[in-house]
Amino acid sequence: MSESPSTDVQATLRFFLEIDKLKEVDRRNFLASSSRRENTAEHSWHLGIAAMIMAPFATEPVDLATAVCMALVHDIVEIDAGDTFAYSQSADELASKEAREQAAADRLFGLLPPAMGQRFRDLWDEYERGETPEARYVMAVDRMAPMLLNTVEGGTTWREHGITRDRVIARNGPHIEPALPAVWAQALAMLDAAAAAGKVATD
Amino acid sequence: MSESPSTDVQATLRFFLEIDKLKEVDRRNFLASSSRRENTAEHSWHLGIAAMIMAPFATEPVDLATAVCMALVHDIVEIDAGDTFAYSQSADELASKEAREQAAADRLFGLLPPAMGQRFRDLWDEYERGETPEARYVMAVDRMAPMLLNTVEGGTTWREHGITRDRVIARNGPHIEPALPAVWAQALAMLDAAAAAGKVATD
Repeated sequence: MSESPSTDVQATLRFFLEIDKLKEVDRRNFLASSSRRENTAEHSWHLGIAAMIMAPFATEPVDLATAVCMALVHDIVEIDAGDTFAYSQSADELASKEAREQAAADRLFGLLPPAMGQRFRDLWDEYERGETPEARYVMAVDRMAPMLLNTVEGGTTWREHGITRDRVIARNGPHIEPALPAVWAQALAMLDAAAAAGKVATD
Repeated sequence: MSESPSTDVQATLRFFLEIDKLKEVDRRNFLASSSRRENTAEHSWHLGIAAMIMAPFATEPVDLATAVCMALVHDIVEIDAGDTFAYSQSADELASKEAREQAAADRLFGLLPPAMGQRFRDLWDEYERGETPEARYVMAVDRMAPMLLNTVEGGTTWREHGITRDRVIARNGPHIEPALPAVWAQALAMLDAAAAAGKVATD
């Protein structure tokens, strides 16, 4: 149930300005150029584009509008919950991640007029559950993006955290390969070239 | 006409990695927090979200998938052509802008497999021509975003360039008001509050 139009506009602008903070949430990986670490807002843009351009290689038919919107929305909770490193093995960090992200979704999507807030919440829930073709596809693209950036950048983040080629494959392959097998094959070839060049540890 | 699937995958990944450079194209305006200037990739993400959340206030019906994809794609040419300041009055800069952007579109969208490259080119051309409801809507949102950020940030960029309240209105109102009148009214109220607080010059 929405309030007056002007209340809805005010709520919409408040949300628009609040999510500006996603530009200041840093991720672990660097840009392809190595100049600095990536932030979550620009990562989300890159995923939206990736969802558009990788669609021809997807194994399941996906609704592109849903996938692109999901890519843009799926990390907004990091404004409150922070970015959890993909290779984290901290039991505490992983255990608290869901509770932190649920609270973040309540607060952030709750800033929007109710109908729009529900739409964002539904997209985020769908992504988190991972049970639809669109959620599986966006999750594959979300794993693909930092894997590619880390590979071409020279593996700095992986070296910082002692992540080997085999762990990269074990962590990402199960999400990417079923959804985007041809893209996975090419990413793997690039990873192996980086390993052969001594940029990625092999044991 | 596409090449083999693996050639198309390689072309797609080359484009994905090339557009990473958009994260290093700086705009004039600052983030809401004032911590630094905004880059074009994160701006494009913010526009994609804005296209989603402002749709209920649009005067013309818009196809949301087209609008969101257009928002994500419309500034990719800045990788080669750079960001042209919205208030630029440099005749040389404005005269060369179109040629620089057309060459950028040829090179960048030309990296994609032909069918996808054409799709990106069509979205960009549609935005540039400004003749469809989606193009007018994305243009309105594209003017709204930096106006809001500059207003809440405290007007640093406008002060740097001697931009007064009246010039902000003259530059942005004709694009925003017809497409998003209720949002424009609220943005104007915020601008006037900033002017009353001495953050935006009134003459």
